[in-house]
Amino acid sequence: MAQQNHQTYMARAVQLARKGLYTTHPNPRVGCVIVKNDQVIGEGFHLKTGEGHAEVQALANLTESASGATAYVTLEPCSHHGRTPPCAGVLIKAGVTSVVYGMQDPNPEVAGNGLKMLEQASIEVIGPVMEAECRGLNPGFIKRMEEGLPFIRVKLAMSVDGRTAMESGESQWITGPAARQDVQRLRAQSSAIVTGIGSVIVDNPSMTVRIDPNDQEADTKTVRQPLRVILDTALSIPPESKILYPTNEVLVFCDEEEIEPDHLKTLQKKKVDVRFLPLADDGRLDLVEAMGQLADDGINEVLVETGAVLAGAFLDAGLVDELVIYMAPKLLGSEARPLVSLPLESMSDAVDLHLLDMTKVGQDIKLVYQPQYRDEGEDA
Amino acid sequence: MAQQNHQTYMARAVQLARKGLYTTHPNPRVGCVIVKNDQVIGEGFHLKTGEGHAEVQALANLTESASGATAYVTLEPCSHHGRTPPCAGVLIKAGVTSVVYGMQDPNPEVAGNGLKMLEQASIEVIGPVMEAECRGLNPGFIKRMEEGLPFIRVKLAMSVDGRTAMESGESQWITGPAARQDVQRLRAQSSAIVTGIGSVIVDNPSMTVRIDPNDQEADTKTVRQPLRVILDTALSIPPESKILYPTNEVLVFCDEEEIEPDHLKTLQKKKVDVRFLPLADDGRLDLVEAMGQLADDGINEVLVETGAVLAGAFLDAGLVDELVIYMAPKLLGSEARPLVSLPLESMSDAVDLHLLDMTKVGQDIKLVYQPQYRDEGEDA
Repeated sequence: MAQQNHQTYMARAVQLARKGLYTTHPNPRVGCVIVKNDQVIGEGFHLKTGEGHAEVQALANLTESASGATAYVTLEPCSHHGRTPPCAGVLIKAGVTSVVYGMQDPNPEVAGNGLKMLEQASIEVIGPVMEAECRGLNPGFIKRMEEGLPFIRVKLAMSVDGRTAMESGESQWITGPAARQDVQRLRAQSSAIVTGIGSVIVDNPSMTVRIDPNDQEADTKTVRQPLRVILDTALSIPPESKILYPTNEVLVFCDEEEIEPDHLKTLQKKKVDVRFLPLADDGRLDLVEAMGQLADDGINEVLVETGAVLAGAFLDAGLVDELVIYMAPKLLGSEARPLVSLPLESMSDAVDLHLLDMTKVGQDIKLVYQPQYRDEGEDA
Repeated sequence: MAQQNHQTYMARAVQLARKGLYTTHPNPRVGCVIVKNDQVIGEGFHLKTGEGHAEVQALANLTESASGATAYVTLEPCSHHGRTPPCAGVLIKAGVTSVVYGMQDPNPEVAGNGLKMLEQASIEVIGPVMEAECRGLNPGFIKRMEEGLPFIRVKLAMSVDGRTAMESGESQWITGPAARQDVQRLRAQSSAIVTGIGSVIVDNPSMTVRIDPNDQEADTKTVRQPLRVILDTALSIPPESKILYPTNEVLVFCDEEEIEPDHLKTLQKKKVDVRFLPLADDGRLDLVEAMGQLADDGINEVLVETGAVLAGAFLDAGLVDELVIYMAPKLLGSEARPLVSLPLESMSDAVDLHLLDMTKVGQDIKLVYQPQYRDEGEDA
């Protein structure tokens, strides 16, 4: 079949995969299209854990037999028995004669096993096709599999002159309603929201996802709430903080040496997951260790919503994959608070960024930058 | 003739007018198209002072007689004898039977006189057509005629976190070559460049226009150099400063009470135009008075290229029509220098901006904002 057709069907599979953007955690977003005689005879995507993988969904929706058909799937079909039988086996049983895949399994230990299983059954295997788009569906799942860390976005809201609040702390609202709604979508696609105790005490945020159900492409009845993670060295979070409610899906990192045991007990009675972390060289909670633990727990994408100090610490630790900045059409002046606490001395210390996207969101501008760490090995 | 055709020919006249973008100072940019039987029979634009107005140029380029033709002109034809005879009379003499104009003369004292002269000669007068586009050609000329002030752009270069330089002052180069070249185009369309003595002493800039001759749509042999204006309260500009050379088209504003008479004589010997200004309430040179004097001298568009303090003073005085910001993909950190010195205390003091344009220029982003002064009467 012509390369052009492969791209058309794979593009549709990518589109289907996106319907799981807010719901597949901790699984990857995957789409599948079954094609026979240049006609789509089945489509499917993974919606959420416990429900069928994309291939199974597509085969369940067949309008005719898949015998002799080609399956397009954004991610290499799995080869292992998990909650469901291996998708490679399901495709073989259905009688498909070709499989076009978007990317190999990102887990280095199993990558290629699904493709091998298909080839051993004399199925023609073609790919990777549209690999960049397919990888773009799952930046967090891939990074977790490849590096043992989640994909980390730091979200910031600022004025044109790079300020987040007045000197007094006054800040609500810098950005407009469209930008704030966009942040809800960032939260919805994240496995976890991370914030610092400072933000919790000052703003008492709930950090829950509040999206219009129509904003979700699938599963409009329920909204998955990401894990909320608080970095709280001395465990000083007030037990009545909104962020601890309503779901109790909350994790607090602290330093065992600095906490009050009574306060720990109070939180544990509320079923808050409190964990001790070692301190890093800078005397702060070890952010790399914290993020590694989140990845171990199946956290794919993390949204950091916090003040200048913690944002600066994430940058300084080389942990930031994307900076998402909402810039409001305002000047807050030279006494106002800085975007990130990063005390740099010379231009050679400046953090270089690469612009990935700029769009107007209401009256504000949304900027997405990728930090260019000079020596990833050293920083990470 | 259909409105659609009027717009097509006026759009062409606007396009022609733009060819004079860098050269017409102190005159306005004007374009003219002569149309007969739905065919363009002549086109022209004003190139520079001393050369023919757009209507005269278009008539000089006729491919057949203008008798019975329609003239499209972006600005009302003039009715007074200046260096050249009035254009309204020239059009009458050429035998055109209709005139479509883009906007009336912005000088309230003569607005409509040219149109009246045409009507009295039984010529059909239609307009304004595409008034916003035609006004957009000459923001400075119009503001000078209507308000006695030039159109003032403040250009700033900053990092994503709103910083212009490191604490030490180190700053070159924040932005990339494409942004710096774009600044040359901003300079080229300005009648004057304004800077402060601080920038002159620290950077010793020449502030001349260095553009590729091909960047100019017309008159590629010479580049007009804008007047350079330095705000220098105590007249401390070193006589060897690059900004005083090579053309000596330089104006220095200072406070008569604070200068050293010997230094004044040195500068005057070099034919530098030194003028005394009163001080404003804030103890600084009176910026409104300075800008008024520039308008009286025929300065249409001013480009302010300066540091945070003077930029803040222009904003504070309510004088800024456009903020042009080049944002480089870098973080300079929280110790670096602020974009503008504006000590504001509460969110209600914040300067609201309106986004006019955002474009990628090389690796940088160019943002054009219009400050929204709450009470123009009070600020100006």
